[in-house]
Amino acid sequence: MTIAGHSLIGAASASNTNDVFNGVNARTGEPLAPDFHGATLDELERACALADSAFDTFREITLEERAVFLEAIGQEIEKIGDTLIERCMTETGLPRTRLEGERTRTIGQLKLFANVLRNGDFLDARIDPALPERKPLPRVDLRQRSIALGPVAVFGASNFPLAFSVAGGDTASALAAGCPVIVKAHCAHPGTSELVGRAIQSAVARCGLPEGVFSLLFDGGVVIGQGLVADKRIKAVGFTGSRAAGLALMKIANAREEPIPVYAEMSAINPVVLLPHALAARGAQIGRQFAASLTLGAGQFCTNPGLVLAVDSDALRAFEQAASAVLSDTAAQTMLTPGIHANYCMGVQRLDTSEHVERLANGATGGRYDAQASLFATNAAAFASEPSLHEEVFGPTSLIVRCSDLSVLHEVLKSIEGQLTISVHMDAADRDACGALTPTLERKAGRILVNGFGTGVEVGHAMVHGGPFPATSDARTTSVGSRAIERFLRPVSYQDWPNDLLPRALRNENPYGLARRVDGVRRREENQDV
Amino acid sequence: MTIAGHSLIGAASASNTNDVFNGVNARTGEPLAPDFHGATLDELERACALADSAFDTFREITLEERAVFLEAIGQEIEKIGDTLIERCMTETGLPRTRLEGERTRTIGQLKLFANVLRNGDFLDARIDPALPERKPLPRVDLRQRSIALGPVAVFGASNFPLAFSVAGGDTASALAAGCPVIVKAHCAHPGTSELVGRAIQSAVARCGLPEGVFSLLFDGGVVIGQGLVADKRIKAVGFTGSRAAGLALMKIANAREEPIPVYAEMSAINPVVLLPHALAARGAQIGRQFAASLTLGAGQFCTNPGLVLAVDSDALRAFEQAASAVLSDTAAQTMLTPGIHANYCMGVQRLDTSEHVERLANGATGGRYDAQASLFATNAAAFASEPSLHEEVFGPTSLIVRCSDLSVLHEVLKSIEGQLTISVHMDAADRDACGALTPTLERKAGRILVNGFGTGVEVGHAMVHGGPFPATSDARTTSVGSRAIERFLRPVSYQDWPNDLLPRALRNENPYGLARRVDGVRRREENQDV
Repeated sequence: MTIAGHSLIGAASASNTNDVFNGVNARTGEPLAPDFHGATLDELERACALADSAFDTFREITLEERAVFLEAIGQEIEKIGDTLIERCMTETGLPRTRLEGERTRTIGQLKLFANVLRNGDFLDARIDPALPERKPLPRVDLRQRSIALGPVAVFGASNFPLAFSVAGGDTASALAAGCPVIVKAHCAHPGTSELVGRAIQSAVARCGLPEGVFSLLFDGGVVIGQGLVADKRIKAVGFTGSRAAGLALMKIANAREEPIPVYAEMSAINPVVLLPHALAARGAQIGRQFAASLTLGAGQFCTNPGLVLAVDSDALRAFEQAASAVLSDTAAQTMLTPGIHANYCMGVQRLDTSEHVERLANGATGGRYDAQASLFATNAAAFASEPSLHEEVFGPTSLIVRCSDLSVLHEVLKSIEGQLTISVHMDAADRDACGALTPTLERKAGRILVNGFGTGVEVGHAMVHGGPFPATSDARTTSVGSRAIERFLRPVSYQDWPNDLLPRALRNENPYGLARRVDGVRRREENQDV
Repeated sequence: MTIAGHSLIGAASASNTNDVFNGVNARTGEPLAPDFHGATLDELERACALADSAFDTFREITLEERAVFLEAIGQEIEKIGDTLIERCMTETGLPRTRLEGERTRTIGQLKLFANVLRNGDFLDARIDPALPERKPLPRVDLRQRSIALGPVAVFGASNFPLAFSVAGGDTASALAAGCPVIVKAHCAHPGTSELVGRAIQSAVARCGLPEGVFSLLFDGGVVIGQGLVADKRIKAVGFTGSRAAGLALMKIANAREEPIPVYAEMSAINPVVLLPHALAARGAQIGRQFAASLTLGAGQFCTNPGLVLAVDSDALRAFEQAASAVLSDTAAQTMLTPGIHANYCMGVQRLDTSEHVERLANGATGGRYDAQASLFATNAAAFASEPSLHEEVFGPTSLIVRCSDLSVLHEVLKSIEGQLTISVHMDAADRDACGALTPTLERKAGRILVNGFGTGVEVGHAMVHGGPFPATSDARTTSVGSRAIERFLRPVSYQDWPNDLLPRALRNENPYGLARRVDGVRRREENQDV
């Protein structure tokens, strides 16, 4: 498969503009061939028209057909072979093992949603049967299922060029729901995006689906992305990226004649709370684990531990020293883009020049766009008075807030913004302290964890990768795991609707064999005559 | 129980202002005693502080305790006795039988959510058990449940002074979710609001709950309502009312430092589609049924049929004549407020003076604030060219759009805004026509129904009282029925969390006996050791 530098508009590819940009070698900053042609407004219009016209068909193919389609996307991605991994390594600076693992995860996510489709519970099929004899008034037959929202705009993330980009979690969950998807490719990995986009395009053709089920748009600027969110045919947006960009998309979506939901995963500093007994028992060990989590993927995880809260003590010093020692020995890693590297350096500089912040450790230096890890410390009073210390520094840098006691630590926790994750390190003797913090942790984060770090994100049924604003724009959802499909659904009721015109999920004969709620009680029966 | 004209701030009542307003006799327009004291900003602040401090306790009482609390509210409302019905009749002009039925529904809604709590499925408890032997990496133990969003602001509706006001559907579902509620009372029925508010206050005390679980604020203007939505401790808003007011609340909510969801049910014209064979077979009969639905509750239902679409024909004339005959004989009914009456008259006037609209029928005239029913007709071209014809006229008035054929009718349907309901009247021979329209109906409405009218709204498990914008601000939800609780929940994941610190829903011993999803598969077991 070759990279042409073209947007994919349904089954076609498009290069109708001379407004070009290039992928960049993350290691050297050199532009990569070929030139990428930004999509035109006409191409945007055509992608939206195709998506809208594909919607009614695509949302009503059988669950099995949609499951097979998701699996076909995975197979087409596998078929690209090493070309995909090599291009992605060049564009992102991420190492081979990481990207091979991410490809496995990407295909795994598609399979997860294929299973969600075959299970069918996501349809939330409900039947309140008619009660013709009810007094004073008879009751109608009322049935409900969830249907797809409509065409969805997905903005690929820079930091997961496979698992949260063109065929990533947002795309997989939106397609599973029955929504056509138009991806605005991230400029940081356009070649990777085109390769994966062509894999989806092939799967659409192979499965005989309407071409409008998928399009991929390139743009070196913001016009196409903004136009996509503003288009009246788009009914929801999935986004992972910076807070500024996420807020800009929310603003466009809210200003539309018909406002639409934006699922933006934006920024988090993922506090790590070190409780006293755990710290005393194994401060140095936790410090080493922390440093490993902090530098994973050059610190470019949404769940990177950017803040540490602990009661000031000798045990905290042991943690700090152990973490510092590991960081000093950690090789610098190339960042995703020169721009991300520049922002990282500015963020570190901001901490470094803050009057009340002490630098504890530096990692090794490396190539021109490599991130030098660092660790800082401050106290609770300074953290309370300097709002900039609450801001995410995207990369392998963290700030320790030394608190005078546990009640101060609790106040610091209450002062932070919404988070994706909060980790607590505890021993049995810390139980009551953890219990006292728990209501605050639940209010502040989508996932709370004990004796671990948030950087491992399982793709399962119980995962929440989400959290209160500004971690995400919508704390009621998750972007990872099977519940991500719920973001792209809405319920519809059918009253006294003729059985043969009902959607399959609600017909008397229950062709999907769903576990349906009948008068609120779930039951699974074949040929359920209600 | 006497009416003091006071806001209820937790367990206290407040009258710290001379800024007063009065309830109004809907029939005469005369002010009613006593004076109602608008809440002060200090009282708003105190209500929010109490709600926030009650939240962590209230959200974690047992499901049974919360169910008993909801039932206690119903019992306290019953205890008010006829005082409630009589005050409400005076304030709203609605007849006794309607209000007694609405009281039954209100108490029924509270019981429904008590059952939802005892069932526990709303918690969506999930467990992905640890896999310590998994390669290449072990899997952590991950559990998920839904928790309450936080304190909720509820704006009572004028047209359901019991079932969608102080202890109505929004309040019941928010309290069921575990959210403290602050109600901004509707000025159209302040005495009714205080009586019901005091019933909730009594239930809070009787159940030994923190007083901040409920407050009720009066205001003759908009300052308190706006301040409530803007307050950082409020985490969601439930609203039923006009489009202008709903949009204003959405704007405030989106402009907050932390944006919050607004569930606004705003406006709908609930199209009625008359298919040719049904119309030919029983046009006159449908016309009579339609007129009855149109004038129910003086046309002041959110689901009132404000638009009729049919292919022009003799059968349509029979429908029109039958509906007109019933309307001409229908006694005028008092509207909820003089303001609503004035707006209704303006809306009718707008239709009456439109060049392309023909008046078919007038109802009887009556008292000063009584609504005179009316029926109008136009054609598809005029409907397409005059946007004002798409606007809701709140009251017993409807507009028939005569279409030249079914494809024109389909185009008209595609041109309308989002709706709460769309009704189709059909016979067996209309099956294909109905099937062809169905995808459009599903896109446009939250509930679609055959051979009936949307004005009956069952409170069950399969009901969607919602729909695409501007019917509501959020098509992903319903404000009536058991799924309404989902609006006030968000998922939280617990990773490797100690069993004795887990919420009850997720503990190994499964004390609630929930049907939990284990690795995505739902199972119900007592003492589930996972």
